[in-house]
Amino acid sequence: MLTNTRSDRVRSVKALTRRAVRQREGLFLAEGPQAVREAVRFRPDVVRDLYAVPEAAVRHAAILAEAAGQGIHVHEVSPEVLAAMCDTTAPQGLLAVCRPVDAPLADVLGADPRLVVVLTNVRDPGNAGTVIRGADAAGADAVLVSDASVDVYNPKVVRSTVGSLFHLPVVTGVPVPQLLSSLREAGVRLLAADGSGTTVLDDADLSGRHAWVMGNEAWGLEPEVRDACDEVVRVPIHGHAESLNLAMAATICLYASASAHRGTGRNG
Amino acid sequence: MLTNTRSDRVRSVKALTRRAVRQREGLFLAEGPQAVREAVRFRPDVVRDLYAVPEAAVRHAAILAEAAGQGIHVHEVSPEVLAAMCDTTAPQGLLAVCRPVDAPLADVLGADPRLVVVLTNVRDPGNAGTVIRGADAAGADAVLVSDASVDVYNPKVVRSTVGSLFHLPVVTGVPVPQLLSSLREAGVRLLAADGSGTTVLDDADLSGRHAWVMGNEAWGLEPEVRDACDEVVRVPIHGHAESLNLAMAATICLYASASAHRGTGRNG
Repeated sequence: MLTNTRSDRVRSVKALTRRAVRQREGLFLAEGPQAVREAVRFRPDVVRDLYAVPEAAVRHAAILAEAAGQGIHVHEVSPEVLAAMCDTTAPQGLLAVCRPVDAPLADVLGADPRLVVVLTNVRDPGNAGTVIRGADAAGADAVLVSDASVDVYNPKVVRSTVGSLFHLPVVTGVPVPQLLSSLREAGVRLLAADGSGTTVLDDADLSGRHAWVMGNEAWGLEPEVRDACDEVVRVPIHGHAESLNLAMAATICLYASASAHRGTGRNG
Repeated sequence: MLTNTRSDRVRSVKALTRRAVRQREGLFLAEGPQAVREAVRFRPDVVRDLYAVPEAAVRHAAILAEAAGQGIHVHEVSPEVLAAMCDTTAPQGLLAVCRPVDAPLADVLGADPRLVVVLTNVRDPGNAGTVIRGADAAGADAVLVSDASVDVYNPKVVRSTVGSLFHLPVVTGVPVPQLLSSLREAGVRLLAADGSGTTVLDDADLSGRHAWVMGNEAWGLEPEVRDACDEVVRVPIHGHAESLNLAMAATICLYASASAHRGTGRNG
């Protein structure tokens, strides 16, 4: 069992909470049983090391057995070592060090996606992670995160995806103009989600292949991005609320698309 | 200008971050320009005192003018005093001390609500606040929060409502069985939102008056609450995600209801 909280290993794992280190090392942290379980189950190929405290090794024996079956190295560590490695104060006893999961844009587009979401300039980790979770739940084919957005391997983003980061292809690091033109060339219609939209969500044609293009959580979509889309759609605000948060708006749009694609729309 | 961070006034305002004090004093805190603006605009009757730092008094002059017009006492305070009064470290220069806004259950039911949401055993402040915001955006008529749930006057809840707490009636402190039987007597259909539901959201009949009954964020609805509802409805999970978070699920359900009520459903 690893018990030295000042070892080089502990320091190098902890350093992955910093973006520059993640990029240099090509590694990131998945903290807690839910994220670790989904990583082991869906992307064992990217899990490099798994750290477990004794208590968690008992409680989550099924996860560790699955990991061992996949040839993943499981290290037993003291609770103090795990805490020293993590971004959270309460990582619930399990931590995985993973290689990036992102998919090349060409692969995603080559698979003829029917429904994707594009995050442009999203800065808040919680919002970005929750969009990935919502996209997964709505059955979207991919999440495309522009280069100017939050790092999807930020521990806060990883946590808020609750494992969904390992479920569906995520593209990162591509500039917005290139994302939009590539989608267009692939025959994917571009729907900007924006409060200024003239089309209300309920009236939008969501039958074909399309992408929801989302802007920044505070200032929305840049005008040139909005103009580059085929249609600007707004989620109606019926009460006095000023807006919905980004993750909420994206998930409502994605679920409307899922209903339309499945032909299960209300009154349908 | 108030500059003494150790004054009795500062201490008594700061004490409102504690539930017991809020209940004893019958007061709560609304922090930041957005919450304060909505309080002043929609519920000036409940705003007892408003505190502003000089810089905010300039930047948010319109809010302060509206407050003055409503006869609300505005106190100028130093940034240090404001920080000492607040729950957040960055209250953005404005703070209101308010009397509770909750509405009596009888009044809410007497107004023949078409769409309400019931929170049973919701413990997470962010989830509770975001449901109130989502209910407001979806045009719901009220939010009913059971006695065993988080205090809606918790500063974290107030913040996550982004002002919506002042927009629509919120009922608090009523036990779940009484909430459900009162709704039933008022002719409101009870739809439990639960992953175990046999009816998928897209197939649910959302035409009439109904309530969405939501459970705890971790363990869902208690079996006896689920059984007391007329129908158990699930938001479909199309991908590999285990679930949606509570606020997300509630908002998707409420927006489906809003579409059905407005006859604007997809393919409708």
